[in-house]
Amino acid sequence: MRPKLDFWYEFASTYSYLAALRIDGLARERKVDIVWRPFLLGPIFKAQGWDSSPFNLFPAKGGYMWRDLERLCVAQGLAFRKPAPFPQSSLLAARVAWTDQMIIHRPEFSRRVLLAEFAGGGRIDDEAVLAGILRSLDLDDRVILAAARTDRVKSRLRRETDEAIRLGLFGAPSFVTADGELFWGNDRLDAAFDWVAGRAEDL
Amino acid sequence: MRPKLDFWYEFASTYSYLAALRIDGLARERKVDIVWRPFLLGPIFKAQGWDSSPFNLFPAKGGYMWRDLERLCVAQGLAFRKPAPFPQSSLLAARVAWTDQMIIHRPEFSRRVLLAEFAGGGRIDDEAVLAGILRSLDLDDRVILAAARTDRVKSRLRRETDEAIRLGLFGAPSFVTADGELFWGNDRLDAAFDWVAGRAEDL
Repeated sequence: MRPKLDFWYEFASTYSYLAALRIDGLARERKVDIVWRPFLLGPIFKAQGWDSSPFNLFPAKGGYMWRDLERLCVAQGLAFRKPAPFPQSSLLAARVAWTDQMIIHRPEFSRRVLLAEFAGGGRIDDEAVLAGILRSLDLDDRVILAAARTDRVKSRLRRETDEAIRLGLFGAPSFVTADGELFWGNDRLDAAFDWVAGRAEDL
Repeated sequence: MRPKLDFWYEFASTYSYLAALRIDGLARERKVDIVWRPFLLGPIFKAQGWDSSPFNLFPAKGGYMWRDLERLCVAQGLAFRKPAPFPQSSLLAARVAWTDQMIIHRPEFSRRVLLAEFAGGGRIDDEAVLAGILRSLDLDDRVILAAARTDRVKSRLRRETDEAIRLGLFGAPSFVTADGELFWGNDRLDAAFDWVAGRAEDL
């Protein structure tokens, strides 16, 4: 059995964009299966008294982050355009990602949402933008957007976010190995793969 | 002229420990001169409403940081012991580092302080610990500790911390290039050297 790595990401998160656009290539090289798990950071931030992204609440950190992201996008060959407003509401996108119809398409849907947002500067809380992405994947946007609003899908996303809290996640992207080791941030993706490879050797 | 890189660090900062213990080796390879600039994060944190380290204020982040540090110390071949209390008061150590007597010894003094704190779990707000480190460098601890308490040295450290704020620093370690590019975190040390090398080619 191939080892697996859980990829926890937020559609509103800048560094999730970088990780989502490179994780599959690395996973193929490293022969690891990635489980794509979009969740919401909003409730986690709220629980510690933040009503917005820390990048907005702490302006020096925010200013730095945009410059850092710009440099990293150049290095990774990715387009970058700062979305307005930031952060975007990622609720609908995350619900769409958790519909049954997305089981196979979740990675590609997620990449296209993140590209629309951070390469295109588009709004991912706009249903028309998400519908366009679904159609670009040859999917029925009306059926999926309706499914995204069902209690079944809403509670699935809530359970995922609860699980994120239980795992001690406090930011995105985060990577969690099968043996429960947590790695936070796009900067730790290689370390997470190294960990998985090391454990595989132990077996 | 060799390019230079300003290394801004905090004696109470865990990731400053990692950076301080590897920056000189990298600098030799990359032929870059490092300017060691210890400063205080306390006033910067206070200005954004924090009365302690964010690693204490946000427990999930703090718990993760200690695990991350443990992993990184293993990878870097460094001993690690969590200091108590955390964070330590770094005021006296930073003042000692800015005495005239430290101009040549600042890097090695800083490494020994950080090792005493994060490898030995010792207290760096204890004058006896700092005196021992000074003597281990064949320096006159009484003269230097007296100098550390002069207005001249106190205001020098204040000026440095003001300059850190002016540069937009919000955490440590940070690296600032001669052309004003800021890199935050031990994870960005290589990127900072790459930046310096790239600019050197342009000249």
